[in-house]
Amino acid sequence: MATLDDIAQELGISKGTVSKALNGAKDVSKKMQQAVLEKAVELGYTRQIRSSAAPRLAVFVINMEYLKPENFGYDIIVGFRKAAEPAGYQVEVIPLTRQMQQDYRYDAYMMMSNYCGALFLGMSLLDPWIKEFETCKTPTVLYDNHISCNPNVTNIGVDITEGIELAVDYLRSLGHSRIGYLSSALEAYVYQQRYQTFIRVMTSLGLTADESVMGNSYHVNTCLSQHLPRLLDNGCTAIICSHDMLAHSTMFHLRELGLRIPEDISILGHDDIPLCRFTIPPLTTIRQNRPALGKSAFYALSCQLNSVPLSTHLLHAELILRSSCGPVPKEQAAIRTRSE
Amino acid sequence: MATLDDIAQELGISKGTVSKALNGAKDVSKKMQQAVLEKAVELGYTRQIRSSAAPRLAVFVINMEYLKPENFGYDIIVGFRKAAEPAGYQVEVIPLTRQMQQDYRYDAYMMMSNYCGALFLGMSLLDPWIKEFETCKTPTVLYDNHISCNPNVTNIGVDITEGIELAVDYLRSLGHSRIGYLSSALEAYVYQQRYQTFIRVMTSLGLTADESVMGNSYHVNTCLSQHLPRLLDNGCTAIICSHDMLAHSTMFHLRELGLRIPEDISILGHDDIPLCRFTIPPLTTIRQNRPALGKSAFYALSCQLNSVPLSTHLLHAELILRSSCGPVPKEQAAIRTRSE
Repeated sequence: MATLDDIAQELGISKGTVSKALNGAKDVSKKMQQAVLEKAVELGYTRQIRSSAAPRLAVFVINMEYLKPENFGYDIIVGFRKAAEPAGYQVEVIPLTRQMQQDYRYDAYMMMSNYCGALFLGMSLLDPWIKEFETCKTPTVLYDNHISCNPNVTNIGVDITEGIELAVDYLRSLGHSRIGYLSSALEAYVYQQRYQTFIRVMTSLGLTADESVMGNSYHVNTCLSQHLPRLLDNGCTAIICSHDMLAHSTMFHLRELGLRIPEDISILGHDDIPLCRFTIPPLTTIRQNRPALGKSAFYALSCQLNSVPLSTHLLHAELILRSSCGPVPKEQAAIRTRSE
Repeated sequence: MATLDDIAQELGISKGTVSKALNGAKDVSKKMQQAVLEKAVELGYTRQIRSSAAPRLAVFVINMEYLKPENFGYDIIVGFRKAAEPAGYQVEVIPLTRQMQQDYRYDAYMMMSNYCGALFLGMSLLDPWIKEFETCKTPTVLYDNHISCNPNVTNIGVDITEGIELAVDYLRSLGHSRIGYLSSALEAYVYQQRYQTFIRVMTSLGLTADESVMGNSYHVNTCLSQHLPRLLDNGCTAIICSHDMLAHSTMFHLRELGLRIPEDISILGHDDIPLCRFTIPPLTTIRQNRPALGKSAFYALSCQLNSVPLSTHLLHAELILRSSCGPVPKEQAAIRTRSE
């Protein structure tokens, strides 16, 4: 294992300067600090943790809204801490800024800050560090993203295939076979996956899954004004939405069109955000079990911290039944029977 | 939580009989014991572990050959114990017999034997307990099998997509584009998955993956006498095999046909069994990292034991480069260039 001396020798500087740079001393230039941190990472140097100090884990969030209880990320963070803190770790929540990603390479930032591992929530594919995850050396867990082939990075989430299968099986048990899908833009990894999985599951059952019954747009309004009418014209009696807010807007819009839910059309969401219990009617949805996701993120990180190169770590999906789905409308069933 | 009294009351027997049955006392009939065990499972009864006793985990193997160091399963078991025992668990390895599966329901067997969780290695799809995994309540981890939708069962293995992608990318970097696939029969879950993933990965790259370049048979001889000639006739310059033993036999057979490996044709295996270093030439293969698999099985079980409903837990794939793959033969490259 590399020592302070190794780093000093490689850079042709004193051991004292290396130590100061690693500890962020003010009298070392930023350029020198960067050079030391990157060399330390390159050589596989590991900081000695005082035996009395708890090892530190970082949870990166896109903004501090995640720390409010009504936010989707709050329960994940609480779950993570519930598993990590009794196991002897100290957890810090850090807002991920573009600036810090431009100022420091990821591994260097982690070494400088003395974090031995990290969980990332809600990262965008445009974040500069995303590229570094392909080669980083710090144990890292990503929620709803996917990096292949780096033994130090694990992808966590809920089993998307299982979720869509549960939803489609349930709708079929209610008599639906013309099932539509509305989605947010496919730029986010998780929306891409859900969209493609819907096509795969439906196709494997011999059901239609093409643009006649599917649509995606960045703007909710485009989904409702352009895609939804097409789905209705093409005889969809049930629609799965890529996330609960879209399902909520879709139900609102359908009611304005004079359609009853679930008597005329069934709607099913993704995520189970707290709002789902209060929509009209309460929304049936595929849950992201947030406290369990938080705990499972810690178990995934435990694997990494114990040198187990974990790739993928997915929770079982759960379908939460409320009142937004019902039996296929009788006349639709009759039309279908006649035309078959 | 259910108590001994609850079980006694439900069955209309004394608490003493319940206690005796749970502890396997000889003066309780087998029929009564079964009834008590199944009722206990049904009511969600959990045995009290004496605080001085280590909780017990079971590793089920298809035969005791797994305990020999040369066996594929040995390193998995050692890895599992290396993670489980320092965490305070006692691990027992148990040969899985058809008889015990017929005599006891799975959950009842686990409660009677006082195991709080289990890892299954090398189970067949025909084993009677496989069906029970769909609804069992005992925390359970399956290696290279897949059970959906039971929150108490986790599937572990190596990321098959990542492995095939690494292999195909590597062969393409050597100039191969006509890549064949030979497989054992598709009755085992893992062979099915590898076969289908090969088709998916090749197709996504615009390369041919149909029966002109693929074959599977239960008997190695059928693979070699029927499928291999077809793959050669159809211009394959590289062949990926579903497992190392098949790759080994394929290389042996190709040499008998007068072909040189890797000068005339490249061969790539799956698993990295110890033999791979000693084949002629040493085999390039997609590794199953056995010690890491064993450790990861324990971390997956830890999730289950802490009520995290983990579905899938996959290790990163690793391609182990030896000498069985080389650049595409020049004349083949020339033929391809002319015909394009």
